[in-house]
Amino acid sequence: MSRARASRPVRRTGRRSGDSGTREAILAAARARFAQHGYDGATIRGIAADAGVDPSLVHHFYGTKERLFAEALRFPAVPSEVLDRVVRAGPDRLGEDLVRSVLQVWESPETRDRAIALLRSAVTNEQAAAMLRSFVEGGILGAIARVGSGDDAGFRASLVASQIVGLGIARVVLRIEPIASADIDELAAAIGPSVQRYLTGDLRGGAP
Amino acid sequence: MSRARASRPVRRTGRRSGDSGTREAILAAARARFAQHGYDGATIRGIAADAGVDPSLVHHFYGTKERLFAEALRFPAVPSEVLDRVVRAGPDRLGEDLVRSVLQVWESPETRDRAIALLRSAVTNEQAAAMLRSFVEGGILGAIARVGSGDDAGFRASLVASQIVGLGIARVVLRIEPIASADIDELAAAIGPSVQRYLTGDLRGGAP
Repeated sequence: MSRARASRPVRRTGRRSGDSGTREAILAAARARFAQHGYDGATIRGIAADAGVDPSLVHHFYGTKERLFAEALRFPAVPSEVLDRVVRAGPDRLGEDLVRSVLQVWESPETRDRAIALLRSAVTNEQAAAMLRSFVEGGILGAIARVGSGDDAGFRASLVASQIVGLGIARVVLRIEPIASADIDELAAAIGPSVQRYLTGDLRGGAP
Repeated sequence: MSRARASRPVRRTGRRSGDSGTREAILAAARARFAQHGYDGATIRGIAADAGVDPSLVHHFYGTKERLFAEALRFPAVPSEVLDRVVRAGPDRLGEDLVRSVLQVWESPETRDRAIALLRSAVTNEQAAAMLRSFVEGGILGAIARVGSGDDAGFRASLVASQIVGLGIARVVLRIEPIASADIDELAAAIGPSVQRYLTGDLRGGAP
């Protein structure tokens, strides 16, 4: 399946009904800019232009670029709810379901720009890196705690994170083919068992 | 094992013996800056300052930032030689040996900054992304061709790339613990079987 470019300019939609429409336009423009350029490359001026407002209004609503970033990247679905759903599917399919859930987050127009912005920004900006680490620690460690893997939960979580982050970078940031265009079921079947092994399998060697 | 920060300023070492010393100082400073700030964040001015030379000299030797980047990131060990060594170890241990080789590249002072610079730059800069993609296509596809996995070699290569790139981002860029400090043998044992599965295993589901 082919897909549109990672980031699209936000179109002006005529007059907006007061503050909330303007705020939403700024947040959407911020997500698109952070997704395309990363935290360091995005400017308040560019975001304001895409949203069709004066830069001073962006500062008025959100203060600093740092605060705008945090607001723009707030996920609509609380990650722990997604993980609850995944965990209810059962411990044996946790790897595949986790991969599928994450791929759906990257696919949905609602969350796609947020995820790309976070991945792209985290590698050059410490604030974004801290957001991603806390996402890993809160989200993935939470999932592992549910399936009860004991002492090495932190190591397991970081292995899962390495595969999930790598999948995100390859698919939606670098767009390495054919992983970039593969369908979700194919990727979940291919990568799920690796994630499952990190969650509950033997990590000290032996056959895969 | 704890490790020094990813990037260190390059110390001036007194007078240099002509052009080649100066060029090497510029390349080392460039590697350190690209590793710390990524392609877009690094400046010729900053690189020149670290190398103890005038910015005009950097332009004189290397022209554009783009060319400097390409020169600075040239790997001393040809990747295909590394892969030859890995492949000779035998197809069953290819995954673990590939992970170990990559970890050694990231560990060696000789190659560490180059690898970090490439990972960090690729997510925001198209030239660096193209370098990383060609590295994946040349290097990893080459390894897969040797173990003869047929039609889906491209898909397998991109899966391997997703895990290797994710491991690099987690370990040396984001420094997610405990993966950031784990020793090479432990990581090779934990991640090798996943990579092995991507290289030669069943990717259509079933037990890990």
